[in-house]
Amino acid sequence: MSRTQGSWIFTAQCPSRIGTVDVVTRFLREENCYITELNSFDDKESLGFVIRVEFRPEQSGFDAEGFLQRFAPRAAGFAMQFELTAPDARMPVVIMVSKSDHCLNDLLYRYRTGQLAIDIRAIISNHPDLEPLAQWHKLPYYHFPITAETRAEQEDQVSQVIQDTGAELVVLARYMQVLSAEMCEKLSGKAINIHHSLLPGFKGARPYHQAYDKGVKLVGATAHYINNDLDEGPIIAQGVEPVTHTHYPEDLIEKGRDIECLTLARAVSYHIERRVFLQKGKTVVFAS
Amino acid sequence: MSRTQGSWIFTAQCPSRIGTVDVVTRFLREENCYITELNSFDDKESLGFVIRVEFRPEQSGFDAEGFLQRFAPRAAGFAMQFELTAPDARMPVVIMVSKSDHCLNDLLYRYRTGQLAIDIRAIISNHPDLEPLAQWHKLPYYHFPITAETRAEQEDQVSQVIQDTGAELVVLARYMQVLSAEMCEKLSGKAINIHHSLLPGFKGARPYHQAYDKGVKLVGATAHYINNDLDEGPIIAQGVEPVTHTHYPEDLIEKGRDIECLTLARAVSYHIERRVFLQKGKTVVFAS
Amino acid sequence: MSRTQGSWIFTAQCPSRIGTVDVVTRFLREENCYITELNSFDDKESLGFVIRVEFRPEQSGFDAEGFLQRFAPRAAGFAMQFELTAPDARMPVVIMVSKSDHCLNDLLYRYRTGQLAIDIRAIISNHPDLEPLAQWHKLPYYHFPITAETRAEQEDQVSQVIQDTGAELVVLARYMQVLSAEMCEKLSGKAINIHHSLLPGFKGARPYHQAYDKGVKLVGATAHYINNDLDEGPIIAQGVEPVTHTHYPEDLIEKGRDIECLTLARAVSYHIERRVFLQKGKTVVFAS
Amino acid sequence: MSRTQGSWIFTAQCPSRIGTVDVVTRFLREENCYITELNSFDDKESLGFVIRVEFRPEQSGFDAEGFLQRFAPRAAGFAMQFELTAPDARMPVVIMVSKSDHCLNDLLYRYRTGQLAIDIRAIISNHPDLEPLAQWHKLPYYHFPITAETRAEQEDQVSQVIQDTGAELVVLARYMQVLSAEMCEKLSGKAINIHHSLLPGFKGARPYHQAYDKGVKLVGATAHYINNDLDEGPIIAQGVEPVTHTHYPEDLIEKGRDIECLTLARAVSYHIERRVFLQKGKTVVFAS
Repeated sequence: MSRTQGSWIFTAQCPSRIGTVDVVTRFLREENCYITELNSFDDKESLGFVIRVEFRPEQSGFDAEGFLQRFAPRAAGFAMQFELTAPDARMPVVIMVSKSDHCLNDLLYRYRTGQLAIDIRAIISNHPDLEPLAQWHKLPYYHFPITAETRAEQEDQVSQVIQDTGAELVVLARYMQVLSAEMCEKLSGKAINIHHSLLPGFKGARPYHQAYDKGVKLVGATAHYINNDLDEGPIIAQGVEPVTHTHYPEDLIEKGRDIECLTLARAVSYHIERRVFLQKGKTVVFAS
Repeated sequence: MSRTQGSWIFTAQCPSRIGTVDVVTRFLREENCYITELNSFDDKESLGFVIRVEFRPEQSGFDAEGFLQRFAPRAAGFAMQFELTAPDARMPVVIMVSKSDHCLNDLLYRYRTGQLAIDIRAIISNHPDLEPLAQWHKLPYYHFPITAETRAEQEDQVSQVIQDTGAELVVLARYMQVLSAEMCEKLSGKAINIHHSLLPGFKGARPYHQAYDKGVKLVGATAHYINNDLDEGPIIAQGVEPVTHTHYPEDLIEKGRDIECLTLARAVSYHIERRVFLQKGKTVVFAS
Repeated sequence: MSRTQGSWIFTAQCPSRIGTVDVVTRFLREENCYITELNSFDDKESLGFVIRVEFRPEQSGFDAEGFLQRFAPRAAGFAMQFELTAPDARMPVVIMVSKSDHCLNDLLYRYRTGQLAIDIRAIISNHPDLEPLAQWHKLPYYHFPITAETRAEQEDQVSQVIQDTGAELVVLARYMQVLSAEMCEKLSGKAINIHHSLLPGFKGARPYHQAYDKGVKLVGATAHYINNDLDEGPIIAQGVEPVTHTHYPEDLIEKGRDIECLTLARAVSYHIERRVFLQKGKTVVFAS
Repeated sequence: MSRTQGSWIFTAQCPSRIGTVDVVTRFLREENCYITELNSFDDKESLGFVIRVEFRPEQSGFDAEGFLQRFAPRAAGFAMQFELTAPDARMPVVIMVSKSDHCLNDLLYRYRTGQLAIDIRAIISNHPDLEPLAQWHKLPYYHFPITAETRAEQEDQVSQVIQDTGAELVVLARYMQVLSAEMCEKLSGKAINIHHSLLPGFKGARPYHQAYDKGVKLVGATAHYINNDLDEGPIIAQGVEPVTHTHYPEDLIEKGRDIECLTLARAVSYHIERRVFLQKGKTVVFAS
């Protein structure tokens, strides 16, 4: 959210070693780049290092490709993976939904107003219900029904759209189907799901009903990268809302919608602003 | 939010006196009404009493008019004002906006999905910008421009729409014009405004810029009934969000949108569920 | 917290039936009692009714015993259990601890300053460490060590103290021993435990380490009545705190202390103010 | 809170200029220092740069003095002020109080358990009431009464204690006297006050009564550095708590205590962990 207008973002990660910060900052100095914000973290548990820098080139005519080429040999010595994101970058995204429209509606609003720097290439659903919403925003809508027998084919259709559109991120905005292990593998680190509970509490189906039965005084939502273990992927963001005895399951469902929207939007925004790093099944998030 | 499906709502208020609860509950018993939730409060400062009851008639064919007529003489002895709200009531509402669409978009979503039991009769704006949004929801949109010279006439136009549509509530969803004292008087207790600060901090114009200059670590929003003192009406709901030094005014504006939407929606929902009572410039809110 | 100075509290619960509110409020009217606050709830799931009334007698020389005797026959018709709490009541309490002192310290502070209307009769621990803290507050401290072999005897000692002191509430303020099923049964509804996670997430041992391993972005605490299923008793209050990747398990432990203290204190305060009702394994809480 | 065990902290600030990060990180690399966490921010409004680094020397026998001497000439070119904090540093602190003990009690608890790495050298009060608390913690307590006539003398006494004890931080833990402009000047940036409202709302006396009169739905607390403008110093941390119509001023006072304690403790912890930087009347806080 608070990314400085017009700034480039440089991110990198590698195994922990002395000199990791210096190799980045020294290079940026040599390239005459003005650092406006820098965050780095070296995790003593996972022994991994991550860094995120916002900067602006001091000269006009910044040569991004040259920048990356010149940094590559330095990175090699640290087995460092790195990425450069332009100020005007808009990440190509595919959104997957079922029948619930609250998260989709929220994402579309943020997309339409430019709050989220994403380029929605397609909306995919196993139901036809949300097509009018897509149409109003002039976005392609793919209705790929799914049955027990056609799951594999349907996933092929989904994969095809993701590939054809060049999507770099898939957002599961209350897509109520379990993906195959294969699909999860393929989308690992590139797909964000919203689960309507405070994971690891209330995994699986009907979490609000589970929460009601348990009599909790807080309900929440969890945005996480998907992996091949249901509702177990690395957590990016969590939100929470107080509830009382007056809230029956249908009230929890209603009350939970806002926190689902907010939590998913925050996770997507962190992802596209390159604030999130995957580290051995968990995330480092330089939140804003 | 958590109003029991199918329940009637009875609300009343009067000066503090012994017997106020009993006069209500005894009557409900006699009328064979089953109380599912009851909240009452007797304010020792303002010396006012308020009560809110959710109930369901035990017999079919509930005669609302007769109910009210039979209660009237009992209420008279307490100078009690009272109201009965049907399970399927949808309050007629007019929404006023300027150019910002986030609160309007949020209200329209909740309206369209039935989360807010309102019947939007018209959207009024001093700008034409938000007409397409109204159209998509098939709602009448009135564009009444305003200048220093035409303020009085414009307010007449607004009043006319409110009157013609039979609106019982006016929601100022980021309407950026100061209403005349006359208009405020007319709408007293019937119009809810959202101000983008934690009142009484940062009244008036550009509160996020004020907040930035002051270096606060929390920003917020306040939903309140309007009265004739700018940003001083009785507060219904307030929301808050942490911020940091990385948030410039434009970031605060962006970050504040969510909390504005949520706070306004909560206030409107409390109002239409008859959870809010006005008491000498303040509110009693039986929140859910 | 916000109990009106000098008010009596009347609470009752019974199976759902028409007339439950009326039988209470009519009686209070006849007894010339002035109701300052009333909350009732009729749970459509558990089919149970609860009511809590704060009132002040209009005449001096209120006869509590007579009040209860006169209400008894009316209650009988509803199978209603009821209780009257005097304005100056201080519930006799026993606190159980192990080595961690943060919750104890917090409770003692609230006790010493009168914020919590409790009368601490004894502090029991399986360790000697916290005796000085008890001494400074001039409170008896019982050190009952525990081993696998002596668990039953130790629980007898604990039970004896509870009985001798006339404690009506036992607060497990980070008592790190699992109670026997027998003991849990005996203390059912009369003992509040604080668990350092958002139950049902992270039950059992070392919840902050579990939370760290899972990479959650929120940690929390849960205050609940004990029952014979570990960490499964009815929840009274829950609190939550955001955390980040920079928090190692020892940081979570430290960060969690505040939310544990606050959550436990809130639950105890709700309990002694008779705001909590047990309903089929869950609670109704008229929070303040 | 989440400072890595055994790490040194290096902090610096200077006017914005290219190369500010590099001059620090290059030096740390040359000194063979392993960076575990780094945060920097360059404020486009105040045109100031701040950096905070946690690191551990790779060799044993780290020579702090030599480190600082060798960095000085490099810093000079940037007009950079810098500071090095040892892993076992405990900042010498004087706490000032009046009669309310909740913040003092809270700070003493965190001090006693080592949560706050401070060395409390003295407690100063204009009242004798809190001496027993100080005694239990074996801390010197100075009772310096104050009257309109003796304000200047009393402040001299206070200044003398601060000087004699070598205190680097003064914590005003609900000290209910306005300091003279002279005293404020002297303590600028070295004294943290807790004000029991969400500044800039409800400045001055009896903020909870002001909040009650206004009917707000949230109350809060603000920890800030003092300056010579009453309740206007740079804000470090703010906390907030929801309230309702049932809370009379005395309830707000009681409810507010927790949030005051937490907010003050957080601000002090941020200060001693060198997470706070003063920038033209505002703060940069690298929160944990």
